[in-house]
Amino acid sequence: MEYIVPVDVHDQIIKANYRLRGYDKEEANQATANCRLAAWHGIRTHNGIKGLELEKRFGSGCASDPLCVAGARIDKQTGRFPAIQTWNANRKLGQPVAVDAMATCMKLADQYGVGIVTVDNAFHYLWGGGYVLEAAKRGYFAYTSCTSSLAEVVPFMGTHPTLGTNPHSWAFPTTDSVGFPILIDWATSIIAMGRVQQYLREGKTLPVGAAVDKEGKPTVDPNEVTALLPFGGHKGYGLALIDELIAAMVGGSLPTIRSRPQPGDGVSDGEKYTVSLFFQAIVPEALTMGNFACGRDQAGNIKAIIDDVLGHGNASCMLPGQVEAEAARRSEAAGGLLFTSAEVEELKRLADQVDIEFDPSVLKETP
Amino acid sequence: MEYIVPVDVHDQIIKANYRLRGYDKEEANQATANCRLAAWHGIRTHNGIKGLELEKRFGSGCASDPLCVAGARIDKQTGRFPAIQTWNANRKLGQPVAVDAMATCMKLADQYGVGIVTVDNAFHYLWGGGYVLEAAKRGYFAYTSCTSSLAEVVPFMGTHPTLGTNPHSWAFPTTDSVGFPILIDWATSIIAMGRVQQYLREGKTLPVGAAVDKEGKPTVDPNEVTALLPFGGHKGYGLALIDELIAAMVGGSLPTIRSRPQPGDGVSDGEKYTVSLFFQAIVPEALTMGNFACGRDQAGNIKAIIDDVLGHGNASCMLPGQVEAEAARRSEAAGGLLFTSAEVEELKRLADQVDIEFDPSVLKETP
Repeated sequence: MEYIVPVDVHDQIIKANYRLRGYDKEEANQATANCRLAAWHGIRTHNGIKGLELEKRFGSGCASDPLCVAGARIDKQTGRFPAIQTWNANRKLGQPVAVDAMATCMKLADQYGVGIVTVDNAFHYLWGGGYVLEAAKRGYFAYTSCTSSLAEVVPFMGTHPTLGTNPHSWAFPTTDSVGFPILIDWATSIIAMGRVQQYLREGKTLPVGAAVDKEGKPTVDPNEVTALLPFGGHKGYGLALIDELIAAMVGGSLPTIRSRPQPGDGVSDGEKYTVSLFFQAIVPEALTMGNFACGRDQAGNIKAIIDDVLGHGNASCMLPGQVEAEAARRSEAAGGLLFTSAEVEELKRLADQVDIEFDPSVLKETP
Repeated sequence: MEYIVPVDVHDQIIKANYRLRGYDKEEANQATANCRLAAWHGIRTHNGIKGLELEKRFGSGCASDPLCVAGARIDKQTGRFPAIQTWNANRKLGQPVAVDAMATCMKLADQYGVGIVTVDNAFHYLWGGGYVLEAAKRGYFAYTSCTSSLAEVVPFMGTHPTLGTNPHSWAFPTTDSVGFPILIDWATSIIAMGRVQQYLREGKTLPVGAAVDKEGKPTVDPNEVTALLPFGGHKGYGLALIDELIAAMVGGSLPTIRSRPQPGDGVSDGEKYTVSLFFQAIVPEALTMGNFACGRDQAGNIKAIIDDVLGHGNASCMLPGQVEAEAARRSEAAGGLLFTSAEVEELKRLADQVDIEFDPSVLKETP
């Protein structure tokens, strides 16, 4: 069962909490927009509760050397390569940086066909899928990837976690073809560390091959887990490494010290602890000479290909992004954001922090 | 044990076979270059023998409607999006098209930071890893993907093969950092259909979860296999779908009819049976403001990050591309290309086709 939280109530609570921590109006608005988008699409792992947790843990909750700084301004560089911009986010909150970066990619793509923005000294941008989804709704083929806050993943054949759960998100402008943007959006670990904590609470065992203990040996016992494994063996390892290598080119530093600033220990001299972000948008029209089979247009061609993939008895297959699209339809039908009772309790706690009246007992439940 | 085939002997045999089938000197040279590169790097699945097989099967061996046409000319379009070119390969042999496309991406990247070339009406380009590897050696972060000739892969949760083994290849300019380009290069199926045939010959069983029978049920018996499964469940399925969606935007048609032209059956009217290619190059310098930790430069930063990933007791991990780099070192040390006795036999057959003297009995063996 889920509870229906009106969008404006959700937004008010989340926004006020960001404002309380010193973020300006625009930062709080854009941060909240990504939180709302995540909740609207049924993303429980990267909603506003998680966003505020991350901000507390690495930002305003840090006595010294916070990795997220309220009101920070982005330095934007347009160098001699006009289709690419390189930004220094100066530890600004991730969501407003990501919204701005994706918008800039789209503008660059309008001019050059493709636009790229890289971000150095960045902070966690919460739900990466949200930025590409919004770009795809506006007609672009969009991609983002980033280095994760912590190195929790053991490289293939290794024993010690030295990689982030490093996600990749692609979205395609397929609303005209299938009713929603196809969204391929996942971390490169089999499971997230949050799932381990959930299984620990619920007394469940983990899937085989998803995690290792402190010796680097595979374990299914959530009590024993110290690190995660990449999905798909050497292939998922390669995909996790891509994010580290892009970050290495952009300006990120060692994965094992990321989000672990150690001021005054000597190591920190000139070191960097921030994550790096990568965004890309492509104009679909720029990819084609328009020579489609059977007189189709581009959207019709995409539809024909998807129909072929899901045809031939494959009707039980899902398209990536379908679950999110169905969650969005449920939110639409319910007239609000759907949260579990545990989440509502957390929202209540957040509302109390900012003296907002929020009475969970009056919330409607989903049928 | 392997046999050492001198590079010039290999090149002469492969080139003469392409020439015999009507390809002009430049086509034959560039096709042979990719074959040599594959063999040099230990790629047995996509060497000259395979290249000539593919050409025969879908090109000059076809009585009607060949998908590969000797001497075809590429129509190149530079539209209003200057960082992207869209090409119609008119079924030209894949390797020369790919070499040309990757070179064009690098030129575009020099100007815009990123360059993309898409190719419609294309033919199989053999070893995709080779094109990005060469670009990475010249200092670019390069990527290519394509739709595979045949739909042999069942979508996640499906029963019927409607996707190609659709590969992705990324290479990074890491020679200064680790001695070779990091190369992430694989198909999105767990195994290739060629592996099934090999296991059939050798009487072995397949890995669990890699293939299905004609009912769409998982099987490890190579006799029963009719289709393959994507690696990594829904994540690998998403990656396979990316190639189909890019092809759909470029101009490819239904995956299940790809490379299966059916002239005169009515379906073929206005249909397309060709594969689609996508190439991208990025100038690494364009991705950064140059603000690296501890005063490092970009190459030094990449090295520091790789050392961190492979440190902490992870010394037994391999970098993607390391196997290929080691194979290249073995070829270098041997002073030639290394082939198995079965491959040498096939090279002998190819040499006989073009009346080239080739005496396998004089070949040196690897120690």
